[in-house]
Amino acid sequence: MPSRLNAVALCLAASLAAVSGQTFQRLGTCPTLGCVLPPDQQDFLPGQQFDIRFEVHAPTNGSEAFNGGVPDDKFTATITKEGQPAKSIAEFFKLSEPALEKWTFSWFEDLFAQDAKNASVVNVASKIYRRVALYEPGNYNVTLTYYSGRTTTAQWVVRPLAAKKKAKNVIFFIGDGMTTNMITAARLLAHKTVNGKYQTLLALDKFPVLGHQMTHSIDSFITDSANSASALYSGHKSTVNAMGVYADSSPDLFDDPKVETIVELLTRIWGSAWGAVSTAFIADATPIALTAHTRSRYQYGSLIDQALYGVTNYSWTKMNGPDAYFGGGAEQFLAGSGSYLGKDYYAEFAKKNYSISLNKTSLLAAPNNTKALGIFCKSNLPVWLDRNIFPENIKKLTNDPSGAKAAATDLPGLKEMTLKAIDVLHERGGKKGFFLMSEAASVDKQMHVLDYDRALGDLLELDDTVQATIKKLKALGILEETLIVVSADHGHGFDVFGNADTKYLAAQQDDRQKRNAVGVYQNSGLSQYTVEKPGVSYGTGANFPVNWDPRYVIAAGLGANPDHREAYGVAKNGSRVPAAAISGGASSDYYVNPTDKPNGFIVNGTLPTNEAQGVHSLTDVPVFARGPCQDTFGGVYSNIDVFYKIANCLGLAQPTNKTASA
Amino acid sequence: MPSRLNAVALCLAASLAAVSGQTFQRLGTCPTLGCVLPPDQQDFLPGQQFDIRFEVHAPTNGSEAFNGGVPDDKFTATITKEGQPAKSIAEFFKLSEPALEKWTFSWFEDLFAQDAKNASVVNVASKIYRRVALYEPGNYNVTLTYYSGRTTTAQWVVRPLAAKKKAKNVIFFIGDGMTTNMITAARLLAHKTVNGKYQTLLALDKFPVLGHQMTHSIDSFITDSANSASALYSGHKSTVNAMGVYADSSPDLFDDPKVETIVELLTRIWGSAWGAVSTAFIADATPIALTAHTRSRYQYGSLIDQALYGVTNYSWTKMNGPDAYFGGGAEQFLAGSGSYLGKDYYAEFAKKNYSISLNKTSLLAAPNNTKALGIFCKSNLPVWLDRNIFPENIKKLTNDPSGAKAAATDLPGLKEMTLKAIDVLHERGGKKGFFLMSEAASVDKQMHVLDYDRALGDLLELDDTVQATIKKLKALGILEETLIVVSADHGHGFDVFGNADTKYLAAQQDDRQKRNAVGVYQNSGLSQYTVEKPGVSYGTGANFPVNWDPRYVIAAGLGANPDHREAYGVAKNGSRVPAAAISGGASSDYYVNPTDKPNGFIVNGTLPTNEAQGVHSLTDVPVFARGPCQDTFGGVYSNIDVFYKIANCLGLAQPTNKTASA
Repeated sequence: MPSRLNAVALCLAASLAAVSGQTFQRLGTCPTLGCVLPPDQQDFLPGQQFDIRFEVHAPTNGSEAFNGGVPDDKFTATITKEGQPAKSIAEFFKLSEPALEKWTFSWFEDLFAQDAKNASVVNVASKIYRRVALYEPGNYNVTLTYYSGRTTTAQWVVRPLAAKKKAKNVIFFIGDGMTTNMITAARLLAHKTVNGKYQTLLALDKFPVLGHQMTHSIDSFITDSANSASALYSGHKSTVNAMGVYADSSPDLFDDPKVETIVELLTRIWGSAWGAVSTAFIADATPIALTAHTRSRYQYGSLIDQALYGVTNYSWTKMNGPDAYFGGGAEQFLAGSGSYLGKDYYAEFAKKNYSISLNKTSLLAAPNNTKALGIFCKSNLPVWLDRNIFPENIKKLTNDPSGAKAAATDLPGLKEMTLKAIDVLHERGGKKGFFLMSEAASVDKQMHVLDYDRALGDLLELDDTVQATIKKLKALGILEETLIVVSADHGHGFDVFGNADTKYLAAQQDDRQKRNAVGVYQNSGLSQYTVEKPGVSYGTGANFPVNWDPRYVIAAGLGANPDHREAYGVAKNGSRVPAAAISGGASSDYYVNPTDKPNGFIVNGTLPTNEAQGVHSLTDVPVFARGPCQDTFGGVYSNIDVFYKIANCLGLAQPTNKTASA
Repeated sequence: MPSRLNAVALCLAASLAAVSGQTFQRLGTCPTLGCVLPPDQQDFLPGQQFDIRFEVHAPTNGSEAFNGGVPDDKFTATITKEGQPAKSIAEFFKLSEPALEKWTFSWFEDLFAQDAKNASVVNVASKIYRRVALYEPGNYNVTLTYYSGRTTTAQWVVRPLAAKKKAKNVIFFIGDGMTTNMITAARLLAHKTVNGKYQTLLALDKFPVLGHQMTHSIDSFITDSANSASALYSGHKSTVNAMGVYADSSPDLFDDPKVETIVELLTRIWGSAWGAVSTAFIADATPIALTAHTRSRYQYGSLIDQALYGVTNYSWTKMNGPDAYFGGGAEQFLAGSGSYLGKDYYAEFAKKNYSISLNKTSLLAAPNNTKALGIFCKSNLPVWLDRNIFPENIKKLTNDPSGAKAAATDLPGLKEMTLKAIDVLHERGGKKGFFLMSEAASVDKQMHVLDYDRALGDLLELDDTVQATIKKLKALGILEETLIVVSADHGHGFDVFGNADTKYLAAQQDDRQKRNAVGVYQNSGLSQYTVEKPGVSYGTGANFPVNWDPRYVIAAGLGANPDHREAYGVAKNGSRVPAAAISGGASSDYYVNPTDKPNGFIVNGTLPTNEAQGVHSLTDVPVFARGPCQDTFGGVYSNIDVFYKIANCLGLAQPTNKTASA
């Protein structure tokens, strides 16, 4: 494998110090001074479209300073299919040679350099070859030659995948941040045991096939939701905050080399219908990564424009917008500072003949044969627990999706949005089938604020939605032709370790005494969430706790915390805000929030003090599968493999340069 | 299901207050005043032997006080197979009526009662019917009638399982306390990624089938290693600290109603060979639960006697001791206070014609056709990290298994013990096959002391052992007839959430500044454990880190902690002791250990202050399977199902009252 040998040799010769680059990296995918994007070790679906960028770096200072800060702009690049002669990139892909680009960026070599404000400045020469594809399965080597004979080689694999469709429809549920540990805890809250035997189970527990996927990013072992969603949807890992691109070092957030996503492929190859449903604002990473191509997930307005009109700054797969698109995030639709160019995106979607729903009543009444947009509030949808158990917390919000200064109260949940999306997609997809992504977003968002009850409530809502979906597909007669995959994009280091006697805890006077309210091992006892309490009835059905506020609650925690106070038990007045910047302090320095769990005991944090919330964790996350191709989802694999398994089941590979036919 | 209705009705009528019994329970399996053991909702293998105990409780005081504290000693009990008439227990099983027993016990209704030293005292009348079995698959109801017409009914299911052997051999690896999160972290340390693609993988990652098992105890949602091992080995959940029995309330720790274990069944039905290997002391819960029948795992000496001679106080399945038995724990073998009746158990095993090995050299030279005992140190075996990377830590111990005041330094690891056990069992089992349990015990033990490096080192040793086992079975020509299962008994709420720059951390002056050495999300970067450091070489092979002490280490944690100090990075001088009782304080009140990670920042605990270590957690744990019957291990199920799947694959069911034949 010459690529890695070269990389290592160069690395040792030219930039030994950079080897310790860890907290910060010059460019994650480029340990040498010559960069190939997509980098070494990437996989491709036959016929999947992508861009190729080359960069040559010349650091002007720091441990890697080179060539007086002048990047080699005479670099050349070739591509070789195994067993064939090397060709220039332009020749191989029948493109004309692109223009040379130049820019400068800076970074810190470590935390000491950051404290000293000692930035390393890098000058760059670059070229990008846009909209290419590799059709023939096999191994390809791409070699960049620069600085008079240095080389960086990327080895790519085009996987030998199927062009034949095995599933007509795919429904991909994502519990954002959902781990096996959380699923176990949710089962404990909502399902009852008698002498160790569960009397009912989660819908997920009944899936026939289980796998684990590794969630790490291309250049960091902890991922965010943007690049992990991108890996699941495109088969290409990216860097934190990036979606649908390999992040380059240029200042433009929208010129990075792109990769085609599952809905772009499905639209181009089969003309299927597709939709996205989320309890987040719809421009949030997990839903938007289906169509987004940017290295910054925070360009919300632009990304909604991309979702409706496709990529418009470069020639790319033509997109006509989703067939069903339901979630929160009115900020990007109301004309104003949150929307792209200040435009009214309700109007933009209406121009493209969408039905527009701003509440549950309207959603349920929307026609199934028309493209459907449903935006039900500003920001994220209120969580299941507030919608169902503590509705007073919703009434105090000013999140009306019309922009009125009022609370959005006629709200659908994940189940209503998902079932309606299936109706629309089933009708609009017809014989061409459909793809639906349905996200329980606040499993993650509520874990971030250590609000375990709200996170587990939304996990149970996801499970209830999965169960209702199976029933619905059966009723429509399409269950057996629909692949259902339920997974996550990353974890949080959550687990339950016992119970807490909230009555005892509240009665104790000091922090150490309060901790003695926690019962571990045999003293954890059984779940009290499944025990009926006289006078308490929520009417939320068989798949949810019968009591959210028992005396004995779960004691749980994360390994990664900001400073906070812990008293366990449900937060009745809305989501937790565990840490706050103390008045007078810097806004990025967080301490225990004095108004959160005031009766609890203080737990000082393990995270940097500028983190107000918990953070993502490393753990592999589960994959549950049922339907056509289910058996391919067993065992342990990378998150990109979820894409290849789904793409293979949908027959999205194009081993020759033609549009495949069914 | 009348059983549960009855239980609920009685519970509401007679003992409403007891419903909130949670931190403590009168008798976990008995919410009413009449107890049937095995209780409601238990499953059985056809022909599996067990005891039945009935108890009638009369609390003398507290919220449940009843009948002036006089238990009904005229209680009666019947058993009904579905569709057949009820018979008395004695009649059904053709036993004579056992003697009535009486005793008294006490408990606390909650933490307030404990603080007030206000115990509830209960008088008990009881009978036990010993060594029965149910052969015919189907549903059985056992009803206890007491206090003039009250009833408690237990519904039992005898599962319709196979009497035909599908696997000749079974090797069951247990990573004690091992979760998916830990497996993910171990992969990160020992295997390298290039641009997001792992270049090598764990042996576990290559298993074709993956499942999840639920680990909860019969009466608490957090388990310990005794009763979870018992569930895995017998198909019967138990209470914390109990093994091979349903815990009763009597004072005798060895009279509780027993259930037959996998090695007892295998010995009785097929005459196969069996062995246990552990890096713990061999009387520890996971290895000893194969043969132990007690509600107290702490009766170490007695349990070694039980392992060699079988149950001797009651008529029970005849056992002749294991064919291979390797681990630590010389305390129970050296004549003295740690051994049963002070006897020399090396001599006892020798009398039964065992080869006795006290070091690795002797182990490797032991004959394969003779029963083999190997005890290599006192207490637990030193962990992989100390044996391989920091051997100085071993030299300072006085753990010689001969009792000499010296360090045991000629130590085998899990791999050497397991491979030798396979040699012995393969030869001694012959055509009858074998069962081997191999335990990586210190994954759990080191997680307890927050020593993540040592825990993950032993997890990697387990993975390396699994890989070597597959190779060995292939060489012996028995790979395809051997079912290999790798699982755990419970979890710890561990996860990795970023990296820590140890150099930066050490250079900061206060706790909040030190926390800023942690890099999260994109700042976690890549694993530095896989990057060669000039001059550092351990020679530990491809499946282990090339550097255990990089500048950038993993930042990880548990949700459940004692007070401790955190600086991340490897503890070079031996395992961590995170919390200590400050001199002058009560020995059960733990604070930060001033000598552990003295350069770190303080993290105050979330656990009761009498906990010096972390505790177990709730999470479902993974099950990896390959070989005959592998497909039955997919999906989500209870820990008892692991037993039924293995027993079914070994053809251990006896649907009629005869010994089955191959």
